[in-house]
Amino acid sequence: MFTSQPIGFVSSTYKDAREIPKGLGAKHEAEGILRILPEFEPGLTDIEGFSHLIVLWEFDRSQGFELLGTPPSDTRPHGVFATRSPRRPNPIGLTMVELLRRDGCELFVRGVDMLNGTPILDIKPLLSGVAAEKLRRGWLAEAEARRRG
Amino acid sequence: MFTSQPIGFVSSTYKDAREIPKGLGAKHEAEGILRILPEFEPGLTDIEGFSHLIVLWEFDRSQGFELLGTPPSDTRPHGVFATRSPRRPNPIGLTMVELLRRDGCELFVRGVDMLNGTPILDIKPLLSGVAAEKLRRGWLAEAEARRRG
Repeated sequence: MFTSQPIGFVSSTYKDAREIPKGLGAKHEAEGILRILPEFEPGLTDIEGFSHLIVLWEFDRSQGFELLGTPPSDTRPHGVFATRSPRRPNPIGLTMVELLRRDGCELFVRGVDMLNGTPILDIKPLLSGVAAEKLRRGWLAEAEARRRG
Repeated sequence: MFTSQPIGFVSSTYKDAREIPKGLGAKHEAEGILRILPEFEPGLTDIEGFSHLIVLWEFDRSQGFELLGTPPSDTRPHGVFATRSPRRPNPIGLTMVELLRRDGCELFVRGVDMLNGTPILDIKPLLSGVAAEKLRRGWLAEAEARRRG
């Protein structure tokens, strides 16, 4: 197994978990910044071509895990793997964000639901699951076009 | 930060990375089993109500990371965070699968692109990004219906 390391930290207006819209159906429209550490900046090359990103991050203010719990969106308990509870065996959170712009090591995004200072573990491009007219797939779309060319 | 722990292991027909359809646009229709360890079984409660799951797993046969690399779907290099390369600072893979059925600790799924024996880190319900007529949202849809009452 591996020991996690931050590739950067989230800058958000949320200082306390109670401020974050809760529940699986909650809408997240808040803007924030993914501040990537300078040593990882080459890893961002070409990311600005993608409209949406998957951000993996650490629930760093959560202790331990609970296999059964009652989420904010229900009054009944459910298994942790059927919820987005922070108290997970591996404390990894996942958020899909819209990439508004990049400035060097900083990614300005919409859809943040992380606390300020949250460690970022990984970023991956989102390739489906958003209406086609809103989704840009960067270098992949270009590579496909060249191949058809 | 945290040290990852497996909550289970993937059972798939892929024994070698070369067998797996590659590239960001590759289609993954292979069936497989997510074998969850018995001590985590309570965490699966109510998961069968969801049609699609996000599986986080470890690239356990990948060594180190490379910030710039040329993916199978292109002839040009891109940043690791703009690709699905296995050589990432935190070696976490992500796959969206369709849940076919559950039998105790075993989740039978379609859409596997992991090697046989891959450690599973987390499972989360998928709540959007799939055509509405194909997406089931389990307890959440029920809780919403009760609230509308």
